[in-house]
Amino acid sequence: MIGGIEAGGTKFVLAVGPTPTGIAARHVIPTRTPAETLAEAMEWFAGQASIEALGIASFGPVDLDLASPTWGHITRTPKPGWSDCDLAGHFARGLGVPVGFDTDVNGAAIAEAAHGAGRGVSSLAYVTVGTGIGGGLVLNGQPVHGAAHPEMGHVFVRRAVDDTDFAGHCPIHGDCLEGLASGPAIIARWGQLLSHLPPDHPAHERIAGYLAQLCYSLFAMTAAEVVVLGGGVTKAPGLLDRVREGAGALSNDYLPGGARHRIEAPGLGENSGLTGALMLAEAARAARS
Amino acid sequence: MIGGIEAGGTKFVLAVGPTPTGIAARHVIPTRTPAETLAEAMEWFAGQASIEALGIASFGPVDLDLASPTWGHITRTPKPGWSDCDLAGHFARGLGVPVGFDTDVNGAAIAEAAHGAGRGVSSLAYVTVGTGIGGGLVLNGQPVHGAAHPEMGHVFVRRAVDDTDFAGHCPIHGDCLEGLASGPAIIARWGQLLSHLPPDHPAHERIAGYLAQLCYSLFAMTAAEVVVLGGGVTKAPGLLDRVREGAGALSNDYLPGGARHRIEAPGLGENSGLTGALMLAEAARAARS
Repeated sequence: MIGGIEAGGTKFVLAVGPTPTGIAARHVIPTRTPAETLAEAMEWFAGQASIEALGIASFGPVDLDLASPTWGHITRTPKPGWSDCDLAGHFARGLGVPVGFDTDVNGAAIAEAAHGAGRGVSSLAYVTVGTGIGGGLVLNGQPVHGAAHPEMGHVFVRRAVDDTDFAGHCPIHGDCLEGLASGPAIIARWGQLLSHLPPDHPAHERIAGYLAQLCYSLFAMTAAEVVVLGGGVTKAPGLLDRVREGAGALSNDYLPGGARHRIEAPGLGENSGLTGALMLAEAARAARS
Repeated sequence: MIGGIEAGGTKFVLAVGPTPTGIAARHVIPTRTPAETLAEAMEWFAGQASIEALGIASFGPVDLDLASPTWGHITRTPKPGWSDCDLAGHFARGLGVPVGFDTDVNGAAIAEAAHGAGRGVSSLAYVTVGTGIGGGLVLNGQPVHGAAHPEMGHVFVRRAVDDTDFAGHCPIHGDCLEGLASGPAIIARWGQLLSHLPPDHPAHERIAGYLAQLCYSLFAMTAAEVVVLGGGVTKAPGLLDRVREGAGALSNDYLPGGARHRIEAPGLGENSGLTGALMLAEAARAARS
């Protein structure tokens, strides 16, 4: 058996199972202080069949540098109490098993590439659009870390010419993508969730247009075959089709990858991140043996 | 000995040498029709010490899919006569050696990552800003292909608020990055090369601002440690410092990679692409044996 944790800012999702897609038991706990949250998670794993390895797909920013003394830590976060939390070390010591560690969105990306909407492709971006906007990237079949990990919610997109009456909701960048298209930005602007606004409300076209720019930029910059769009905002009816249309218009049939570029909903539903966590556990077990 | 070709739209640069950084002989021929150009290149190689493998770093778009029957071909290009040219196959048959093949900018990127401005890093983007704008990407130590290969000159950047009097010079996208900041766009707009305009001309700030957006987007989307800026436009005095400043302002100290993100001139000068071609030859020889 292997174990997985999708560590999020509002909840931790825990699971054990024989394989990444065979979840035998699953449990959700609310995210509170690190001490409370990690203790409750440890307690749950103690009551399960014993596991040979654990994978953690975590909210960020995190340290993914295997040569760093703070590998597996959450680094500088505005979330009270969580800065410098040694997430990987806590469970490695507590459970006595090898631990694999990556961002929540890189976890979702490896899972969607292996078992979800991108099954069979070697390049895929997973973007979640919810409380914030974050993205993970698999290229050449491997999760991308680089200098740390992508932070693709904070790219700048071109404002629509008639969209000048909203300064943006990001405390760092104002009207970066997250400042325009995250759930809180939509509520700050229109007072409602996107899915609660009527289908002819201009918000749908705005948000789709900004997300289309991210998708097109990912295609143009990384040549990724598939962009998976997850998170609450992307569930608004018709949104994905609008995003596809917008990205197609931006490309104007130019990109050499052509129809190999696709924009998809998560193939694993709500389980992309958790499945990714279990894949990280599998990799950690393989690396140990 | 190994051989390399940097195949460009205006010239082919040929070389042989014992290692990628040890160029023993080098020769430049102008790019004309495929028949003339490839024949002259073959003739030059015939007069050199015999080689065990050849690497080609080519202008694009190209087919990089090893499973494709048109692998190693230039695909659909506006350059008269060159569409569907079987570049790799021509030299493989003519020289009877294994051939490695990638884009010119992926070649430059692997060379800069291994031997140039990014020596020691595993993630690097090489962007050339000249007749066009193109970029190659190395992540996790490997060149990125994805659905085909990146086309990062054609991303859209945010226009400066007071920059409204130029429609852009790209026939496909109008004011995409290439339509705003390539050499021909600069000449169309201001009648001069950037390096010929006086240092206080507003063009410098404009172009630097647009290139800074590409660099920041690469950092945010791929977490690449180093962006190498090559090509004629980037040699304008002071440009790189302006780009660094602009990218820093966009990040606003947000990206978790921090100071590990760098913007650099090519460490290999004019030889990035050619060195990359020789590295592709080395890889092709190793794969054969």
